[in-house]
Amino acid sequence: MARNIQVLLASRPSGPVEETNFNVVETDVPKPGPGEVLVKNLWLSLDPYMRGRMSAAKSYAKNVEIGEVMVGGTVGQVVESHHPKFKAGDHVVGSLGWQLYATSHGEGLTVVDPKLVPLSAYLGVCGMPGATAWIGLLEHCAPKAGETVLVSAASGAVGGVVGQLAKLQGCRAVGIAGGARKCEYAVKELGFDACVDYKAGKLIDDLKAACPNGVDNYFENVGGEVMDAAFRVLNPFSRVALCGLISDYSAAEPYGTKMMRALLVNRVKLQGFIVFDRQDLYVRAVSQLVKLVSQGKIKYHETVAEGLPNAPKAFMGLLKGHNLGKQLVKLA
Amino acid sequence: MARNIQVLLASRPSGPVEETNFNVVETDVPKPGPGEVLVKNLWLSLDPYMRGRMSAAKSYAKNVEIGEVMVGGTVGQVVESHHPKFKAGDHVVGSLGWQLYATSHGEGLTVVDPKLVPLSAYLGVCGMPGATAWIGLLEHCAPKAGETVLVSAASGAVGGVVGQLAKLQGCRAVGIAGGARKCEYAVKELGFDACVDYKAGKLIDDLKAACPNGVDNYFENVGGEVMDAAFRVLNPFSRVALCGLISDYSAAEPYGTKMMRALLVNRVKLQGFIVFDRQDLYVRAVSQLVKLVSQGKIKYHETVAEGLPNAPKAFMGLLKGHNLGKQLVKLA
Repeated sequence: MARNIQVLLASRPSGPVEETNFNVVETDVPKPGPGEVLVKNLWLSLDPYMRGRMSAAKSYAKNVEIGEVMVGGTVGQVVESHHPKFKAGDHVVGSLGWQLYATSHGEGLTVVDPKLVPLSAYLGVCGMPGATAWIGLLEHCAPKAGETVLVSAASGAVGGVVGQLAKLQGCRAVGIAGGARKCEYAVKELGFDACVDYKAGKLIDDLKAACPNGVDNYFENVGGEVMDAAFRVLNPFSRVALCGLISDYSAAEPYGTKMMRALLVNRVKLQGFIVFDRQDLYVRAVSQLVKLVSQGKIKYHETVAEGLPNAPKAFMGLLKGHNLGKQLVKLA
Repeated sequence: MARNIQVLLASRPSGPVEETNFNVVETDVPKPGPGEVLVKNLWLSLDPYMRGRMSAAKSYAKNVEIGEVMVGGTVGQVVESHHPKFKAGDHVVGSLGWQLYATSHGEGLTVVDPKLVPLSAYLGVCGMPGATAWIGLLEHCAPKAGETVLVSAASGAVGGVVGQLAKLQGCRAVGIAGGARKCEYAVKELGFDACVDYKAGKLIDDLKAACPNGVDNYFENVGGEVMDAAFRVLNPFSRVALCGLISDYSAAEPYGTKMMRALLVNRVKLQGFIVFDRQDLYVRAVSQLVKLVSQGKIKYHETVAEGLPNAPKAFMGLLKGHNLGKQLVKLA
């Protein structure tokens, strides 16, 4: 008989995440109660925000408690349904956590069609990361054709969509990524106009060369020295969408940003945002992204770990930038 | 026969401004050409932005060149006019610089009425600093009644107006200032609900106590550690109007801001702004401020230095926070 596998938070990391922060356990498959569905998860999404949920620091969402199942986006198939909106066999995307089986009252579960795009895409380019790119770029930066869009973590699940949406808007798309392979991927596979390798040691000069007309829109995923350098090339009246600060998440002490003056002098608008604040835009973003992906107008790449027991290691790799594109765990 | 007095930029400061950076000279009173007016300045405004114009660093406006007259806002009286819009005896506010007499083609000169508010007020509460407060608070923060407004440099020319406009909007107005005297002035004379002394050594705790419901709107004049502390008490969806970073202007190395994460987690909108970008709002702001001041609904304080030769010393004092309210130089 089938058994459930779950990954629990065993301890809170102090600094970099370690495998001992997780506990992989085997449990009974839960029984769905009245009004509930039982879902078998097929794919788990790994995302940088999970690092915040592992810590005790106050954030925009409830932290995971010690001993609880790690939070995470999933796509799976309904095994048994006592819920009028779902039937056995339906494919559903939601946030059922790092586990093979889960029951749900249906909140936050959406039926998706694997004939439009592959199931895993609903966790990446056509899911939360894609919607994050769409909302941050189109709603908060609102770039005009001919402007330059700069995005950090350009080869990541979010950054890759930002650059391609920028191109579709008629903008110059410039990425920042770590290493020649990621930069090449952004330019050759995703169609960025340029991508700067922050590990090459001359980030500011390289940014100036890649952005000859300066930067009008900056989509920030990384923070730290990368952000400080990007602030130096901002144009007057530019917009910054502050989406993530991954370089700070595991640091003992946050980086001190020196170029605040650039935000003043250039009259910059900086907007921190969380994708889930705008449910209206989320739905619109996903439906447009499904269309663009199915038409081949937006490309994506997935880095896949096999099986739930490998999720902790894959997550640690994600935080160190080992992935290319969307980091997933294939569960079944 | 009358002589002109001018204060020239003698050298660019490296770090704190010194008197040797200025050169006070006596020259002939200029003769107005066709289409020009000759103005005798009565008051000179001293403002933190002038520190930026003394340096060679790129900013939003042209720097003062070595040997040029220092830039600055003035209010004076037309002595002789060859311009159809002005007649001898008119009082005019403009930006004629650190000098007793100046000619002008009339651009940027506005006739003002000394019967509505005292002439000097057109350089402070009813001039550029007042309009800065108005635009930053009402346009960029847009506080709602019941919200908390926090402003740094609360006893300064801009900060004092921010707090009073916040009260008129039905908000809780909390200031940050340096020293007990300035804080007492903000609360007892300007009507702030509370004012925190950043020199008292427990800024974060004091801010939390003064803002029991957190901060919804933060008007930043200072930067550095003060800003980092204020970022810690921001509420979700709060707004930051980034007006000035005076603590950085004379520092050899800019302060490293550690709390960028607070802008992300709380989905903060931060907007850098310069008052002169919005001429439409400027005119509306000044006309409303003249009305509020003449009705006694907005109060102000002036710190006055006597005579142009004392302007450099007064400016150095301003950068060190020695002034209370608007720093002026009385020229005649």
